Amino acid sequence: MSLLVIGSVAFDALETPFGKTDKIIGGAATYISLSASYSLKPVKLVAVVGDDFPQSDILLLEEHGVDVEGLQIKEGEKSFFWSGKYSQDLNSRETITTELNVLGSFDPIIPDAYQDCKYLMLGNLAPQVQRLVIQRLVNRPKLIVMDTMNFWMDIALDDLIATIEMVDVLSINDEEARQLSGEYSLVKAAKKIMGMGPKFLIIKKGEHGALLFHKSKIFFAPALPLEEVFDPTGAGDTFAGGFIGHLAATDDISFENMKRAVIHGSAMASFCVEKFGTERLLNLSAEEVEAREAQFAELVKVMPAVVVPA
Amino acid sequence: MSLLVIGSVAFDALETPFGKTDKIIGGAATYISLSASYSLKPVKLVAVVGDDFPQSDILLLEEHGVDVEGLQIKEGEKSFFWSGKYSQDLNSRETITTELNVLGSFDPIIPDAYQDCKYLMLGNLAPQVQRLVIQRLVNRPKLIVMDTMNFWMDIALDDLIATIEMVDVLSINDEEARQLSGEYSLVKAAKKIMGMGPKFLIIKKGEHGALLFHKSKIFFAPALPLEEVFDPTGAGDTFAGGFIGHLAATDDISFENMKRAVIHGSAMASFCVEKFGTERLLNLSAEEVEAREAQFAELVKVMPAVVVPA
Repeated sequence: MSLLVIGSVAFDALETPFGKTDKIIGGAATYISLSASYSLKPVKLVAVVGDDFPQSDILLLEEHGVDVEGLQIKEGEKSFFWSGKYSQDLNSRETITTELNVLGSFDPIIPDAYQDCKYLMLGNLAPQVQRLVIQRLVNRPKLIVMDTMNFWMDIALDDLIATIEMVDVLSINDEEARQLSGEYSLVKAAKKIMGMGPKFLIIKKGEHGALLFHKSKIFFAPALPLEEVFDPTGAGDTFAGGFIGHLAATDDISFENMKRAVIHGSAMASFCVEKFGTERLLNLSAEEVEAREAQFAELVKVMPAVVVPA
Repeated sequence: MSLLVIGSVAFDALETPFGKTDKIIGGAATYISLSASYSLKPVKLVAVVGDDFPQSDILLLEEHGVDVEGLQIKEGEKSFFWSGKYSQDLNSRETITTELNVLGSFDPIIPDAYQDCKYLMLGNLAPQVQRLVIQRLVNRPKLIVMDTMNFWMDIALDDLIATIEMVDVLSINDEEARQLSGEYSLVKAAKKIMGMGPKFLIIKKGEHGALLFHKSKIFFAPALPLEEVFDPTGAGDTFAGGFIGHLAATDDISFENMKRAVIHGSAMASFCVEKFGTERLLNLSAEEVEAREAQFAELVKVMPAVVVPA
């Protein structure tokens, strides 16, 4: 089933306790597309870069099954750039530079060949741009998944709420869920947020796993306890890409299948953090992904007690 | 199978965002014993109180199947007293008063009738007192579970390490595991701590669940996402009591059964936090406990995808 992804394609410069990078390929839509490409191809990308964006990185996306017809290249302009530095425990990060560049005036043009998409992933972007994508699709997709962040809650709350109202699944982290709802309890927060429109809510808790809510049902997926986390950049986007990739590939949006999609997304994210940037997402085998998913299942598996008849 | 519990029996005065209490019954051994009593009776208690401790509270323990032969009552002395106030989000607490009283000179005397115990739970206490209990048992119990806290890491690390070396299962929280091991990664921390003696390690993560480690195996039990947490006091002790209670009742210390014990302990702890102090632990039905355990199973359950033959 066709999948459309919108979000940033950008440069990142990262510093973690384990090292630092020069400008490398980053952006929400990059991680989402690469991650989803392990479930289905092509992944139809809508994004914008400047003419400083290397052809080799565009080729890299294409080699991973990303359809770049919707990738706008703005002559004479520069790509979005973010640089940040992580704390010793990797649980917080400081933004050093944010250069909006081409993203400041992004007009998301949907190629005609993308109009058939049944699955739409709105990666983190200004909520009015995310909304424009929904409005420009002739037929509403079967499932719209939206990722966002606290930044938009701070500066564009009305726009954000108007966009959230239009989507099926919202994916945010625990602090964002608390900020958006004004509730500390995640169960109460989830009820309020689902009352704003989305029928499904994913609350990401980083190293503590993820919760999936739907009506009164709750599913919990642990995070894999990892010996080393190298670079958390893109983990949330990789999760989202794995999630919608699985749903689009199976074309099944039942709650049961969403659980599997959460596990698959968690497995993909657990690879992402093992290396800098997108590196670990470039050459995974199907066997590695399956083995990782099996580890998630093993982690919570409890065999029922064997009752010996008296 | 007989279970011996040692720890504090005390007065607590609690303040949470939802209200405050006068002096009520508290202490690690109180929560552990009440929680374990839902799995097996009697629970043989070794502890000390002053003559200010009400007969009615001792009766309450007895009514819940706690054998109080090992409960020393010190004439003319006062019981251990702790008062504390929780933060708005219940994730941190401030100690207002700690009056050691009888606990300052606690000599843990083991009644002869307790010598047959196969399961020993060392509730949080000075590590040299915990060690004395092990030394005073003629036969080493089949399983020794130990709970402790950062306080002893700060002031009695050598004693703590000497005691940890002698136990089978250590139960601590994530911050304590990091402090004890000097490792941020919980996987690395667990390896180091198991290298100190315990064959099993439980790392409690509060609202984020609990991890059970054994050799290279890891089991993760989520915490139940609760709409309201009323008072977290005693949750860790209630978890420990449920854990060892389940193991003692089933007399099975396999890793598989320890997983079930972790789930049972988590279920008991999820009740504990619903009311002030021990209140919620006083009148649970077997049906309520089973239903809660089923909720834990449901929370992480993923049905395999049905593959329709082509």
